[in-house]
Amino acid sequence: MNDDSAQRIVNALRRRIAAGPPGAQLPPTRTLVAEYGASPVTVQKAMRQLNALGLVESRPGVGTFVRAARTSLPADFGWQTAALGARRSRMSGLSSTQRASGADVIRLHSGYPGDDLLPQRLVRAALSRAARTQAAVTRSPAAGLPELQAWFAAQVAAAAPAGVTPPAGRDVVVTPGSQSGLSSIFRAVVGPGEPLLIESPTYWGAILAAEQTGVRLVPVPTGPDGPAPQDVDRAFAATGARAFYAQPTFANPTGCQWSTRTGDEVLQIARRRGAFLVEDDWAHDLGIDAEPRPLVARDPDGHVIHLRSLTKSVSPALRVAAVVTRGPARDRILADRAGESMYVSGILQAAALDVVLQPGWATHLRTMRQQLRMRRDLLVASVREHAPHLRVDHVPRGGLNLWVGLPDGTDVSRTVRECEARGLLIAPGEEWFPAEPAGPFVRLNFAAEDPGRFAEAAQILGARSAG
Amino acid sequence: MNDDSAQRIVNALRRRIAAGPPGAQLPPTRTLVAEYGASPVTVQKAMRQLNALGLVESRPGVGTFVRAARTSLPADFGWQTAALGARRSRMSGLSSTQRASGADVIRLHSGYPGDDLLPQRLVRAALSRAARTQAAVTRSPAAGLPELQAWFAAQVAAAAPAGVTPPAGRDVVVTPGSQSGLSSIFRAVVGPGEPLLIESPTYWGAILAAEQTGVRLVPVPTGPDGPAPQDVDRAFAATGARAFYAQPTFANPTGCQWSTRTGDEVLQIARRRGAFLVEDDWAHDLGIDAEPRPLVARDPDGHVIHLRSLTKSVSPALRVAAVVTRGPARDRILADRAGESMYVSGILQAAALDVVLQPGWATHLRTMRQQLRMRRDLLVASVREHAPHLRVDHVPRGGLNLWVGLPDGTDVSRTVRECEARGLLIAPGEEWFPAEPAGPFVRLNFAAEDPGRFAEAAQILGARSAG
Repeated sequence: MNDDSAQRIVNALRRRIAAGPPGAQLPPTRTLVAEYGASPVTVQKAMRQLNALGLVESRPGVGTFVRAARTSLPADFGWQTAALGARRSRMSGLSSTQRASGADVIRLHSGYPGDDLLPQRLVRAALSRAARTQAAVTRSPAAGLPELQAWFAAQVAAAAPAGVTPPAGRDVVVTPGSQSGLSSIFRAVVGPGEPLLIESPTYWGAILAAEQTGVRLVPVPTGPDGPAPQDVDRAFAATGARAFYAQPTFANPTGCQWSTRTGDEVLQIARRRGAFLVEDDWAHDLGIDAEPRPLVARDPDGHVIHLRSLTKSVSPALRVAAVVTRGPARDRILADRAGESMYVSGILQAAALDVVLQPGWATHLRTMRQQLRMRRDLLVASVREHAPHLRVDHVPRGGLNLWVGLPDGTDVSRTVRECEARGLLIAPGEEWFPAEPAGPFVRLNFAAEDPGRFAEAAQILGARSAG
Repeated sequence: MNDDSAQRIVNALRRRIAAGPPGAQLPPTRTLVAEYGASPVTVQKAMRQLNALGLVESRPGVGTFVRAARTSLPADFGWQTAALGARRSRMSGLSSTQRASGADVIRLHSGYPGDDLLPQRLVRAALSRAARTQAAVTRSPAAGLPELQAWFAAQVAAAAPAGVTPPAGRDVVVTPGSQSGLSSIFRAVVGPGEPLLIESPTYWGAILAAEQTGVRLVPVPTGPDGPAPQDVDRAFAATGARAFYAQPTFANPTGCQWSTRTGDEVLQIARRRGAFLVEDDWAHDLGIDAEPRPLVARDPDGHVIHLRSLTKSVSPALRVAAVVTRGPARDRILADRAGESMYVSGILQAAALDVVLQPGWATHLRTMRQQLRMRRDLLVASVREHAPHLRVDHVPRGGLNLWVGLPDGTDVSRTVRECEARGLLIAPGEEWFPAEPAGPFVRLNFAAEDPGRFAEAAQILGARSAG
């Protein structure tokens, strides 16, 4: 016996093991002795080495087998730390609104309507129809299906007053959801390191997209009628920013709508400052007590970059949104989209267009609106009844959410954790602030959960947020 | 008559015009005289002003009407020039491979297979089935549907040798097409201003994504067996790059496949240099004479970031691809995806998974392979027969394209234009070079056009590219 011959057998058997299936039986020692011209002791030594390497296992009285779970060294990803360098964004990309939840939990944390509020029949029929067309097997143009572009443009044109030429189909860039539109707008129109005015509080996804792009956020406080125009003007002047991201219609999280006057004044400021107003019209279809008044309809000179999504009114699975804008900004955004994703699935575009062209679409919007009103009113009443110490400063005029102030000094994270322990998922308000939160808030979605559970939810939240 | 009363009538009528539909008839002068208590001269003066403003038009003998084309000042987007600043990328995002084409044109310019090469029946049936499931009306997880993640992981695991732990489902991030994967990898793993090694020639979409991200491209020449490992090592050493983008399997545009040895050596170099190898396995399903050998299967430590797409083998409308990678790089990429697009349509994911799990999928792949072989051979033979002065250095072993060298000194743009004038669309080679083209080349797609027209195409190209 010598070490070299044991090693020779080990090497030969390793090749054999690598070539064969896991679980295969190795020949008995006497066969290997003959095959390799070695002593039984040498063969047994080789087998012990293979066993130590984790490549085989012996089952006493049965034989030796290739390990079913193939052995490997523990993976070492430590080298990536140097290759990747420091993180460029503090955000992980995962929001508390996206947490999965157990079966019996009350879910007021998400940002989507429940599927009972969606036009399910229209969506399923539209997808089945689209599956039979060429849209199922062909590439679509970079800017989107022309018919869908035209529909988005017509939606804006319908609100345009006399004297303003409304955008045309070519001014529309279809994107796979509004998050993609935000990312492209921030990359193409603002750029890394550059300042961007942003309402506070505002949509966490916009904050995330901005941070991923590396733009510098300049928060502007916003209230029930929108931001104070002088605050906007001052922020433009102080930072030299060339863009302002805002949700004039049923803002997320508050559900407030800018007054007509605020809209006019902010638009004038943008004109005077040579700046863009990025109008995220996410809740266009989700009005409860008010109609949307998109500012893009009153903008002849390409100051407004308008973002409209169908995700929350048609289906979260039909990822279709549109950026409506004019001038070179449109070309920059389209170039960014082409570099980012080339084009949007024609199936989704064809199905989305089919849905919004059905007579049932208008009916659906009316029904959804009634549902939202009923649910909103019930949640507001529940909170006022069961948690009267909480602040509901603004009853949302549209959207899916109620923004609730907790007593000063409340530890929001603890409240959220304690509610979760009692079976209620809510979203902590800090995610909607581009900087420190202005106070302790939580956001409650009234469009996803069974309204029959709102009273229970308000009781849990009330008990866990006593001042 | 006085100017004030004319102005008063103008103002009143402007409000009326703005509120009413275009084309509406205005009341006759005598009615307006009565209505506004003004003289006929004053009313006529007001009407002339409205006409000068372009708000109304009079049709002699009929009446005065609100102009159908509502008047507006010409839009002025000049201010955007200052707001947008200089362009950060020289590329417009539109490639010559994406040109639309007339009816009778011979199309060898595109990057996609024709729909007769796609599993149309499977795709349509899968979409119809998915339309009936919850996938049609719900949001899907940020990293993708778990079943689809598991399928992509299993595809890699099937090629993993003993001793290497293959990636698991959680190592997979589903993206809406591979272009999105490329963008996220370049943003999350390389970053603006940082160097990225890249084969030359290589896929124009990768060059585009890299330029949009602002990474600095470092071209490495590649040949029939892949790049020379010492070139790769030298480029890493000279630039300090931490990533290399490559297509080891049936590269676009050449159809070449790296030798096993090149793959092993480049992988070892990446390990030694603490760098990532971004393996774009776009043609995994498009092998003709060879099987794919994904390098990710031989990488235990997260050096390979593997990109696999179903766009070209399932359907261009099912935008589904996957990034397979391990370690912190996976978390960075997932965070970038969440910021960029939140999640991928569950409908597309469910349908894509349905297709690849059908028994018909394997049959489809075999049929497609035979079709590709037949078409490739016919195009190669046609070029050799009708344009013998052109160089077909490598018969592609997989993929959709033939890379053809023109005689030295050929003006490729002129050849492409002249071919187009004679009804043949081809793609100029320069789009595949990260820097200056190494010579005059064109790319011919053999998978989209009717092969019955290949001879004619070769004749046109031959006649337009004589040395």
